[in-house]
Amino acid sequence: MNTAIFYHAGCPVCVGAEQMVADAIDHGRYAVEVVHLGEQAGRIFEAEQSGVKSVPALLLNGQVFHINFGASLDDLKK
Amino acid sequence: MNTAIFYHAGCPVCVGAEQMVADAIDHGRYAVEVVHLGEQAGRIFEAEQSGVKSVPALLLNGQVFHINFGASLDDLKK
Repeated sequence: MNTAIFYHAGCPVCVGAEQMVADAIDHGRYAVEVVHLGEQAGRIFEAEQSGVKSVPALLLNGQVFHINFGASLDDLKK
Repeated sequence: MNTAIFYHAGCPVCVGAEQMVADAIDHGRYAVEVVHLGEQAGRIFEAEQSGVKSVPALLLNGQVFHINFGASLDDLKK
């Protein structure tokens, strides 16, 4: 099974992207997980290790795609 | 039918994004079109009108998502 992890932080840019992009992904072939880094700060490290620099970001089978720009990961740590 | 248009310009960043992202989209629900603006310069205007500023970009039902950064649309006009 392919994996798609959508990292966001609840910002308007993130939410709009989440609804459109996460919905467009083929849920039959991809296990889609949505992670709100504002609420799950414990997963910021994992996101960073995967190469995520800002949110919203989509991780497809471990490869990171930054979609538009909502907030940097550094700002989420404050 | 939903529409997904993936604009790119053949750059390495674009091609990687195209293969991963365009493939992840649910082709059962979305009519997916891939447009190479380097080869189809006549469609740059249409992309601009849709809000595309740089490639690769994904247009989902008319809403633009800039994915990573390959090249600006202005550079493609040169």
